[in-house]
Parts: sequence; structure tokens; C-alpha cells
Amino acid sequence: MGTRLSEVELPPVFCPLESAVHPHVRQIEKRAVEWIGASGMCASEREKAWVVATHSADFYARFTPAAEDDDRLLAATLWVYWGFGFDDVRCDSGPLSGRPAQFNALAGQVQRACETGLAEPADRYARALQDVMRRFRSFAPPTQVTRFVHAHRAWLSGVAWQIGNQAAGRMPALDEFLALRLLSAGGHPTFALLELATGAEVPDREMNRPAVLALTEMAIMVASLDNDRYSLHKELIRGHTDQNIYTVLMAGRSLSLQQAVDEANKLRDRILRRFLELHDVVRPTAGADLSVYLQGLRHGIRGNNEWGQRVPRYLSLGHWPDEWEDLSPAWAEEPSDLRPGPVEGAPSIAWWWDADLG
Amino acid sequence: MGTRLSEVELPPVFCPLESAVHPHVRQIEKRAVEWIGASGMCASEREKAWVVATHSADFYARFTPAAEDDDRLLAATLWVYWGFGFDDVRCDSGPLSGRPAQFNALAGQVQRACETGLAEPADRYARALQDVMRRFRSFAPPTQVTRFVHAHRAWLSGVAWQIGNQAAGRMPALDEFLALRLLSAGGHPTFALLELATGAEVPDREMNRPAVLALTEMAIMVASLDNDRYSLHKELIRGHTDQNIYTVLMAGRSLSLQQAVDEANKLRDRILRRFLELHDVVRPTAGADLSVYLQGLRHGIRGNNEWGQRVPRYLSLGHWPDEWEDLSPAWAEEPSDLRPGPVEGAPSIAWWWDADLG
Repeated sequence: MGTRLSEVELPPVFCPLESAVHPHVRQIEKRAVEWIGASGMCASEREKAWVVATHSADFYARFTPAAEDDDRLLAATLWVYWGFGFDDVRCDSGPLSGRPAQFNALAGQVQRACETGLAEPADRYARALQDVMRRFRSFAPPTQVTRFVHAHRAWLSGVAWQIGNQAAGRMPALDEFLALRLLSAGGHPTFALLELATGAEVPDREMNRPAVLALTEMAIMVASLDNDRYSLHKELIRGHTDQNIYTVLMAGRSLSLQQAVDEANKLRDRILRRFLELHDVVRPTAGADLSVYLQGLRHGIRGNNEWGQRVPRYLSLGHWPDEWEDLSPAWAEEPSDLRPGPVEGAPSIAWWWDADLG
Repeated sequence: MGTRLSEVELPPVFCPLESAVHPHVRQIEKRAVEWIGASGMCASEREKAWVVATHSADFYARFTPAAEDDDRLLAATLWVYWGFGFDDVRCDSGPLSGRPAQFNALAGQVQRACETGLAEPADRYARALQDVMRRFRSFAPPTQVTRFVHAHRAWLSGVAWQIGNQAAGRMPALDEFLALRLLSAGGHPTFALLELATGAEVPDREMNRPAVLALTEMAIMVASLDNDRYSLHKELIRGHTDQNIYTVLMAGRSLSLQQAVDEANKLRDRILRRFLELHDVVRPTAGADLSVYLQGLRHGIRGNNEWGQRVPRYLSLGHWPDEWEDLSPAWAEEPSDLRPGPVEGAPSIAWWWDADLG
């Protein structure tokens, strides 16, 4: 991008949501790290160190601070570690990152391994995934597992889209990027873990309500744009020209990096404001399990921020991950943009502002 | 493949399932043909002629012979015409058939158009899809629409996988091919239309029962393998070396075409036998709406055969489609293979034979 982070001012984060972390986070982390070693998914000590350094236990303990069953929370956490590992080694920066033909085939086989424990995938990540799925099936009803399976496919389809653009040297326009980012950051499976981790069983008629689908998509989008923010430092240092909200806005609207940072922050705040507004309409009518799920969306947006501002995944620049940084994130008191939606130039997400939703 | 169809003996089809066709098939066809013209999805009269010649009205009238609402049946039928058109122009033999990067991006945008009517896709097929989706949303509950949306993504992910293999010159082994074919032939959305066309609303706890998921997958697989059979004539004439059950078996097991035809027929019959067996276990315990759905799977397998043996899509070789052939399909009295499952060398589908399923 030709700019240093020191030349860019990142605004504080507007995030008026509840902060909490599960009290058993250390125990869960210990068990998860043992599993990572035993699972065989990492090819080297260095690969394992990076997976462990994602601090996924901290991440997911913030999504589900009140989960009652440690085994459930552990299984959900294992998927998060797995997802970050897979992303690093097979998606974002691995050898397949510019090879859509090969990635499509791998994604197909990984997804099938997600669906059936009897598949015999050659890929070490696919095999580790089967163990996580067996845990889910052991304690969750088929509907919750099926929802996760669908969310998993949505994620892989987004990664395939991103890898395709990268291979074709194609920088998407804002609208396409938002539709892509909704999938590629893994938000769908991460939030589908909420039911698996907490034991909530949201009835179909509530989970598929357009307003609840919109809330889920908005939570995903806010978290995904926040991740673009936390990745910015690394992207700048590495000179990446990957697809992220900043490169997309700079290319599409001829903006400087600082202008793109400010524009992205406004876009993100407008989505969060709509999330908060719609949440407050839906929540009073929600059943008990839907309430747990909606609270998980709120915790997830907040927790992703608390985690993302400190995690070596986004901060470390060396061969090995640095220590966990103990920073206090800077929070904004007010949103950066008070305009009503829908956001201009983004028809793919315009439906979030439908008056019919509530 | 270097062999003529006249040199290959295609065995008769084992298909002991109910045959029926909706009485309003002609009226539905007339309305669908008008829509195809008005939708703007076809770029030329010739493209339109091929879409019309898919006889999708006949096809889907056989899946849902007892559908009570013509508008619902029409909307489902429109999607089938649309799906065949999209497949021909954008997937199988269009300019994207060997370009996974471009296809992944198109698939992402088409899928988003499936999800929200407010998206503004540039692609003419994506725009036509939005009209079909609006119809679904006008009469179906969100859960049935959501199921279709997930099924739609599954299909596109399979096409992306197939196109990736094609681009990489990669002939999959049998197990990978079966997992791919389960997705790429469009069986998931076609059977997800059953609820939309009939108005059945299968409760989540029944629809996501492993046994029901297995029955759905088996119905898809039998129909997909049957489609490979009906495409064989055209494939041979055109000298295609595309991925189908015959090329996969010939390459993987060093078989002649005749041997591959016989092997594929046995494989297909073993799956159908397991479908019939498991159906008879599940059906007596099924609620009314699940019964409608299961009967639709049966009608679909049968109807796909009755349609596939006559449709110009698989038979015509010229620039324009030939007339609909009025042939009487040849049926086998007995299955070609009585061995119990699971099928050897196909762990991806082994779970269909799990004793736990019933």
C-alpha cells in the first residue's frame, strides 16, 4: 500500500456491547493445546506455535462467557483453533492462496469430511476436523450440527471466491467485496458454534426469521471489518495488496489510506448501529434460546475486538509469534457516522435496513 | 472416449418406483415458456430454444404430481429451467467451464442474488434468479426458503469443484467423484424444491434426521448417476473427456467403456437398493409433511429417468434441439447387484449404510 501504519491514524472502536470472558478459559486453553499437538494437523513445531498463538480459547471464551458445559466449549474452541490453522496454511497465505482449481477440490473434500466421519481425507487438516465434528455430534442434536455444516460450506465458498479474485488479479468493487467478506472471514461457522457451545436450540421459525438472519449477517460483517482493521499493520509491513476493506475503498474510490480507514470506520459503525437498533426490536420477542444466541452475537462482536487488538496473529511480524500483548483497547464513545442506512453503493447488504424486518 | 455408443450395451434401468405426472403440466409449461422469454436471461433465440427444450415442466411435474397449487409448481419449474440454462451457459460448456477463478466470483454473486432480492447483479442469469426467489418468498415460510438457499450454495460449490478439476486436468478418483457429483448435478436444490412446490413443511427435527439426510443424498446420487448415463451418447459423440462416472471408473480401474458401464450400473443399483430399504424403515414413522417429501424423492428418481431417456438435452446433436422423443424406457426387473453395502472404495458415502440409521 506504500504507506506506513505510523502515518495512519486508526480511530478508536465504537462498541457499546457487554464484555465478559468465560471463567474456565485457562483450563480450556490447556486442553485445546494438548489436542492440537495430538491431532496431527500441524506439520511442524512452528506451525503449531502459530496455531496456539491465535489464543482461540480466549477468543471463544469471550463469545460464550456463560457456557455451562466445558466439553461443549472445548469442542467449539477446537474448531476455532482448527479454522485459524486451516486458514493460515491452506487459504490465506499457503501454497493454494493463488490456485483456485486446487483450492476448490480441497474445499470439497474438507467439507465432505465435515459432513461424515467415515470419509477418509488425505489432508491432515480435514482429518483433524473430523474429530471436532465427532464431538459436536456426540452432544448436539442433528439440527444444530446441520446448521454448522451449512455455515462451514458458506465460509469455504467465500475463501474460494477470494482466492479466485487473487488468482485473477481482480480487485472487487465494494459491493462484491462485502458479499465476499461476509463469507470468507469465517463468521458463519464461528457464530454457528454459539448453539453448539451453549446448548441453545433455537427453533427453526426463529432462526430463519429474516430479522435474525440479518442480525447474524451484520454481526459477521462488523467482526470481519474489525479483523481487516487488526490485520492492517501486518498487511502494510508485508506490502500485501490483498482484498480488504481498505484496498477495496482505495481502488474503487481513489482514496488515500487514511481516507479509506475513515470511510471503512463509518461504514462499519453504520452497520453496528443498525445491528443495535434491530436487536432491540427482536430481543423482547425472542424465546429463551434465541435470546442466548442474540446475546452471543453481541458478545462475539465485542470479544472479537478485545481479542483482535492483542493477538499475535495480527501483531507479530517474526518467524515465531510474539507474546500475547496486554493492551487496553481504545474505545469510542460515539459512532463515527449517524446517517441512516442503507449504505450507498452496497445493494448486496441493503436488505439489512428493510423496514419490514422490525 | 474412443468408443461409439453402438458398441456399448446400456443395461435397462432398475427403478421400482411410482410413475406419475402432474395433470397441469401443459399449462405450467406454457406459462414457464412465456417467463423464459420475458425474463431476459437468454441472449439469443437459440439459447432460449435449448432452455425450453429441457422440458423442465415435464421433469418437475413428475417430481410433484400431486402439487395442489399451480403457482407454486410453476415457480419450482421456473427454477429448473433456470438451472439448466445457467448450467449450459455458465457452467458445463460455457466460457467459464475451465476458468475456476472467474466461476468462483460469478457463483458468489449468483448466490448472493439468491439470498437477497435487493442485490443488483450484472449477470442476466442472476437477475432472472431473483424473480424466481421473490416467488418462493411470496408463498413459502423462511425455513423452506433458507433450506433452498443452502442447497443452492451446495450445488454451486460442486460446480466450482468440477470446473477446478477440469482446469487442472485432474480426473478424480471414484470416492472424490462421488462426493463431487452429489453436489454438482444440482440435486440438492432440485429436491429442496419439493417443499416449495408442494407446500410441505417438514419439521427440522425430521428433516435433519441422519436417515432423512441419507435418503436425500441417495436420491440425489441415483439421479445424478442416471444423468451421466443419459449424457453418455452426447459425451461420446463430442469426444468429451469430462468427469463422469464412466471416465472416472475407466481411468481409476483401467476398465473398458463397457466394463465401466456395467460397474456404474451395479454401483447405482446398490445405492438405490439401500434407498429403498431405508425408506421403508423411515416412512412408517414419518409425519405427514415428511411423507410428502419422501414420496417426492421417490417420484424424483423415477421421473428423472422417464424424462432423461427422452429429453433433447441429452439426445440432440445439432445446433438446434430436436423434437421431444417419445420413447418407452426399458426397465429392469431386478437390480444388477445384490451385494450389501457400503460400496468398496467410496468412504465418502459409506455412512448411508450405517446400521444406526435404521
